[in-house]
Amino acid sequence: LRFLSSEQALADYAVLVRHVKDTFNAEESPVIAFGGSYAGMLAAWFRMKYPHLVDGAIAASAPLLAFEGQDVDAESYARITTFVGTSAAGAAPNCVSNIRKAQDIIAKWGTTAAGRAQLMPTLGLCSAPPSQEAAIVISDNFMEAFPTLAEANYPYATTYFGDMPAFPYRVACDYLRNDFTDDDVALLRGFRAAVGVALDSSDDSVQCFDWNATSPLEDQGLFMYLWCTELYMLYMDRDGQRDFFRPRTHNITADSETCRATWGVELRPQWAQTVYGGLDAIKASSNIVFSNGNFDPWGGYGVWDSLSDSIVAVSIDQGAHHLDLMFNHDNDPVSVRQARAVELREIRKWVQARKDRYM
Amino acid sequence: LRFLSSEQALADYAVLVRHVKDTFNAEESPVIAFGGSYAGMLAAWFRMKYPHLVDGAIAASAPLLAFEGQDVDAESYARITTFVGTSAAGAAPNCVSNIRKAQDIIAKWGTTAAGRAQLMPTLGLCSAPPSQEAAIVISDNFMEAFPTLAEANYPYATTYFGDMPAFPYRVACDYLRNDFTDDDVALLRGFRAAVGVALDSSDDSVQCFDWNATSPLEDQGLFMYLWCTELYMLYMDRDGQRDFFRPRTHNITADSETCRATWGVELRPQWAQTVYGGLDAIKASSNIVFSNGNFDPWGGYGVWDSLSDSIVAVSIDQGAHHLDLMFNHDNDPVSVRQARAVELREIRKWVQARKDRYM
Repeated sequence: LRFLSSEQALADYAVLVRHVKDTFNAEESPVIAFGGSYAGMLAAWFRMKYPHLVDGAIAASAPLLAFEGQDVDAESYARITTFVGTSAAGAAPNCVSNIRKAQDIIAKWGTTAAGRAQLMPTLGLCSAPPSQEAAIVISDNFMEAFPTLAEANYPYATTYFGDMPAFPYRVACDYLRNDFTDDDVALLRGFRAAVGVALDSSDDSVQCFDWNATSPLEDQGLFMYLWCTELYMLYMDRDGQRDFFRPRTHNITADSETCRATWGVELRPQWAQTVYGGLDAIKASSNIVFSNGNFDPWGGYGVWDSLSDSIVAVSIDQGAHHLDLMFNHDNDPVSVRQARAVELREIRKWVQARKDRYM
Repeated sequence: LRFLSSEQALADYAVLVRHVKDTFNAEESPVIAFGGSYAGMLAAWFRMKYPHLVDGAIAASAPLLAFEGQDVDAESYARITTFVGTSAAGAAPNCVSNIRKAQDIIAKWGTTAAGRAQLMPTLGLCSAPPSQEAAIVISDNFMEAFPTLAEANYPYATTYFGDMPAFPYRVACDYLRNDFTDDDVALLRGFRAAVGVALDSSDDSVQCFDWNATSPLEDQGLFMYLWCTELYMLYMDRDGQRDFFRPRTHNITADSETCRATWGVELRPQWAQTVYGGLDAIKASSNIVFSNGNFDPWGGYGVWDSLSDSIVAVSIDQGAHHLDLMFNHDNDPVSVRQARAVELREIRKWVQARKDRYM
């Protein structure tokens, strides 16, 4: 686990690039880094830290301004997630308000044994929650479907985030388009169906949601180890007003305890900013394209403005999480075609610059 | 020992700068890195890798092009060392030829027991060498005084490299200014006296040269550990024609074995170039002044040409190892005053640029 660090990843890339160049006598060949999300951060950082090995980088949906020391809006992830459920983003008009209502109903039913018993069939749980607290945990778990639906909100069916239809968030919201006045059961069933869009519901063997299951360690996410040791990203705050989640604010003390308990490591909230330097360091670099989509919850932590002739930002209207790195598709919006054209133009410049050095 | 690496040193600086800025609420304050020799490499690399933490760097006599992958002249260290003993560098005319002759005489005397016995008083050894091989090892040890004399060849007395007079190399060569035809003893005494200039001869307790002494581990130089693990600098080759040393060429296999035997580590000849990237990486950076002196054996591995508006090279005629980082002195040549003026001008630019960002 001590080798699991972003610096080690970058050093591995460096050794690999040198090895490939040496092995194939390819010193003059240009190298371009591509990556989306965490890999988009790595692509940008690789260019920033190893400009001699990589001629340029495409950093798609890379949340590299999510760290303390930047002007971070820790609630933007939740706010964008909520936005993708609105009619402005093409979803059914009642979706957001019904999602809020569903959570209230679950909390209310959770107060009584009868209510909790009824949650089981209504939400398709494998067993009834034993307390209101448990009911709310289940509700929160369900809510985590919506960031996924937003990130995966591609204009065509994909399996990238599990088996998803085209515009999965819209499909989910379609289950919540009604008014549901006085029909809490129907609302909760719609909520459950919406969440199910993200739960890979095509798997017929899954008959109920086993909220009580303990997941194996790797499912707890090795990313959390990175989050503890290096990449303490501030993206999980919610105010409950401008987003449809239950309010929460990150707590360094509590997060430190979790990191110690789970991995036996110390939380290092300042590390990423110290090593990678956020906007200041990006400005000192060159030959990077930062792309971001407005359907992507991570977009709140990316670079949206060009910072120089060779630090170019491109925004993708209707873009989900690194849509530009997916294959071309007939359903692609014009915005992503244009973004790819910008990326191609920049890559051509970087390649030409390298060729010029050997002429 | 696992913490002894240049990357760790840079990361330590990074954490220190952040800590100081946070503690003293000094986010807006500019930070300038200074360093000579290895520290000059670190200063440049710190700016290259952490441009968000340091606004510029003065890298004096920094041999950061001494690595495979660059166009390295591995003999330049020996050649410059020899040059500083010539009249072109202000030394007595016969100095270089007498140094060559002295080595030949030692090798010749080494072939007979009588000759080896006579080496003891003539060279001021604590005991006579038991073989010709031992005599040559002693001769080689003595020869290592000259790189030190060259590096330390400041125009005034210093204690930086031990207790040295002004222009110590010239003082050493003054012992070798005669013709010494047919007077090998006088020549060897002159050689010993010249070498003695570098041996801190002011210490009256040292009566003889104890060539047989084993030095403690730290005297073997922790730098060699760095040289093995990261900084395999190609500076020790000699051709014996354009320099006055016995010929030798570096041998990766032999060096690997030495590193394994001494420190239990693997030699990594490609590492520095992979991580720090030589000229290519420097070109991608900004706000660095590289200074070099032509009296400095390390000058063969430095940056002598400006690479951009903000990567500025400055050469110091008669400059020994990072002369510009010493305090001002009446004996300073005009060249070093000019170099410092350039450095000051660049630093002012860097400071102004940072101030402009907070106006």
